[in-house]
Amino acid sequence: MFFVQLRDEETHMPLPGIDIGEIGHKRGFYGVSNGFLGLKNVRIPRTNMLMRNAKVQPDGTFVKSPASVLTYFTMVMMRCVVTRDNATLLAMAATIATRYSAVRRQSPINPNEREPQIMDHVTQQLKLFPEIANAIAYQLSANKLWSLYHETYVDIERGDFTRLPELHNLSCVMKALCTADCNVGAERLRLACGGHGYLTSANMHLIVSSAAAACSYEGENTVLLLQVGRFLMKSWRAATEGKPLTPTASYLRGPARGETFGKWTGEWANIVAAIEYAAANKVRLAFESMSQRLAQGQTEAEAANGTGIELTQAAELHGRSFVAATFLAYVTGPTVSERSAALNRVLERLLELYLVHTALRHLSDILQCISLSDAELRSLQTRLESVLKKIRPDAVAIVDGFDFHDRCLSSALGSYDGNVYERLFDLAKQSPLNQEPVPKSFHKVLKPFLKSNL
Amino acid sequence: MFFVQLRDEETHMPLPGIDIGEIGHKRGFYGVSNGFLGLKNVRIPRTNMLMRNAKVQPDGTFVKSPASVLTYFTMVMMRCVVTRDNATLLAMAATIATRYSAVRRQSPINPNEREPQIMDHVTQQLKLFPEIANAIAYQLSANKLWSLYHETYVDIERGDFTRLPELHNLSCVMKALCTADCNVGAERLRLACGGHGYLTSANMHLIVSSAAAACSYEGENTVLLLQVGRFLMKSWRAATEGKPLTPTASYLRGPARGETFGKWTGEWANIVAAIEYAAANKVRLAFESMSQRLAQGQTEAEAANGTGIELTQAAELHGRSFVAATFLAYVTGPTVSERSAALNRVLERLLELYLVHTALRHLSDILQCISLSDAELRSLQTRLESVLKKIRPDAVAIVDGFDFHDRCLSSALGSYDGNVYERLFDLAKQSPLNQEPVPKSFHKVLKPFLKSNL
Repeated sequence: MFFVQLRDEETHMPLPGIDIGEIGHKRGFYGVSNGFLGLKNVRIPRTNMLMRNAKVQPDGTFVKSPASVLTYFTMVMMRCVVTRDNATLLAMAATIATRYSAVRRQSPINPNEREPQIMDHVTQQLKLFPEIANAIAYQLSANKLWSLYHETYVDIERGDFTRLPELHNLSCVMKALCTADCNVGAERLRLACGGHGYLTSANMHLIVSSAAAACSYEGENTVLLLQVGRFLMKSWRAATEGKPLTPTASYLRGPARGETFGKWTGEWANIVAAIEYAAANKVRLAFESMSQRLAQGQTEAEAANGTGIELTQAAELHGRSFVAATFLAYVTGPTVSERSAALNRVLERLLELYLVHTALRHLSDILQCISLSDAELRSLQTRLESVLKKIRPDAVAIVDGFDFHDRCLSSALGSYDGNVYERLFDLAKQSPLNQEPVPKSFHKVLKPFLKSNL
Repeated sequence: MFFVQLRDEETHMPLPGIDIGEIGHKRGFYGVSNGFLGLKNVRIPRTNMLMRNAKVQPDGTFVKSPASVLTYFTMVMMRCVVTRDNATLLAMAATIATRYSAVRRQSPINPNEREPQIMDHVTQQLKLFPEIANAIAYQLSANKLWSLYHETYVDIERGDFTRLPELHNLSCVMKALCTADCNVGAERLRLACGGHGYLTSANMHLIVSSAAAACSYEGENTVLLLQVGRFLMKSWRAATEGKPLTPTASYLRGPARGETFGKWTGEWANIVAAIEYAAANKVRLAFESMSQRLAQGQTEAEAANGTGIELTQAAELHGRSFVAATFLAYVTGPTVSERSAALNRVLERLLELYLVHTALRHLSDILQCISLSDAELRSLQTRLESVLKKIRPDAVAIVDGFDFHDRCLSSALGSYDGNVYERLFDLAKQSPLNQEPVPKSFHKVLKPFLKSNL
């Protein structure tokens, strides 16, 4: 990386050899000045290089970085930041859609009664509440990731790089999962606002496009998952050989020794263990596929490409395990006593929803290695419906608890006072086409045209 | 429905009692003039009513429509049209992303070789090829739906309404499934274009937002699925009572009699049967939940709301069964002999991909009622990877076969000649900010500011 002067200080003209411009309109991120740059016979002085880790000495000698992963350390930080930011975006979208769903009334449930708040439709609850739980789960695990980053930063300052690979891989998978889920979740929440969700005054479109952009920048999500998949292959080998594992991969140890899952009980810790076991099973399957391809004479790289689908699936479940375990530890861990009973009850319901919903989402992965009876399957569905019902009365209060200022949400649908229709109408009235009762185009174009035909 | 004069013919001013305006900016669908309208003491003459079916006679007598569903018949037609249009949108997005993936080179597979076309990454194939297969599956089933519409139209002209409920429900579920899959699929394809997929010159953003809009208009998707779910409840009751079933629901008969699935063989017809069986199982579970709620004293409407999640899941699988069965019938049916062997081979691969991919997508639904051994599960994954590889050499030719003109795709990434970078650069150069080497804002704002600080 280097910096270089592009324009003349007086005239602002591009300097000789420099071809510069903007890349044209793009979807979302309007304020970011992405551009193109061509350099032809432009000399970059050595001192213009950012030489924190790798260096070039005055005599031209190249000095490698003390640890190759250090080259990516800024990216690691950015991925931690992106994870936190996207958890916040999802919370914003959930706040808007939940508040709107308490104001909007549509589709009678009982024909003789008034149209209900749309949040009373169970299918609407399924669109809103799991995203609230997701946002909290990602916020908690982004916080944990952020602490890990700071601890590792201190280690690195001391010249200790041992925890860097773990942090690198965790930041990769968290960035990929959180941005992908936030993109899909925010769009689901936008759709949950019906026709009004399309209005720019709802501001959902900007949240969705910001979340979407994060899927591609700072490491494209699939590329990141493939990296994590390869890390899991090394971890699985280490586990089968009885070598040490990094903390977040330690759940591989039992399955690598051939331990089976035991019994499904459906308790929270049991669900987290089931997700971990399903992750370990995916890692094992991917490892076997890789090994088979290597045995057939493929190079390591070809085998990794051929196993790409299974590697990304394993990485996804690995990340999901971390989020689920983090959420569980937060809700049931030592901080319980620092919170009020009422807050703990709400958090427990959100955890219950997150775990049941995640188990159902990954049910095929779980059923491939753990057997559930019909009654146990049935019970997951019942628990889902039951916890949605329990969260319903608190839903607006929970998103109020995210504490976003109206200016930050900037949404006619999601303001704190719930005056949706007044705001929608006021904002529509500001449209340029609504400034005059008859647009100028009528007199200039339409009327002469109509008269000419008469 | 009625029509009414809104503005004065001479002045174009809104007539007395009429409050009219546009609703403000919205995401996508820029050309559609959605507006708001208020009517206060405005009289609508009887003859201004659209009285094709229900009528009001001069003496005020209301005459009901000869069949209540006739009221929705225009909506039925629109849903058939929307289904076809969205299948086309998905094919457009698949064309752009597939062509781009043949031009773009990135991420070496073997370190010593040139960066490959990104389409050689198996994970990229998984993003592209299932969407090609989806687009074709939806086109074929939209065609079948369209024929059914025309047959039913002829019936109705003769006063025969027997097939209307079937058409109504099929158009609902097809509209909901096709628009939802097209929205998600087009966004997946846009993301598959990496950073370039965000440029408006790629035109993916307009395809995605058109597909997204279709999820909400002409019947919101969840509302439609709930309708179909209630139709399936009636069908299940009829099946258990041995009463006649409409053709698309006839697969419920066996399971309603308690027949089990038999053996999983993984053959195409067997996979279609498995999807149907899983659909029937979801219908049964929803029916049992409904019955239980009714037995607890809930009204029909409350019970339907409480069972909403299961009803929509059953409806989704019901629709998927229709698409899968239609695709299978087309590829293996009597038209085989009308096509070249080469075309049949390509279609067979796309069908194989569609069925294996759909089975994996609904694997948890299948595993809940059909048992698959580890080897059979493994075989699905192997078949997926194997068919992706087989489609790879034909992929560009297949999307060329959709025969979209460059003007229609309007995409720098997806043009027929593959000159992606030339087009991207030419279009970026047209940006207003690129018309001068130094923007006027420098002289007006930035230079005086910089000078004032010096």
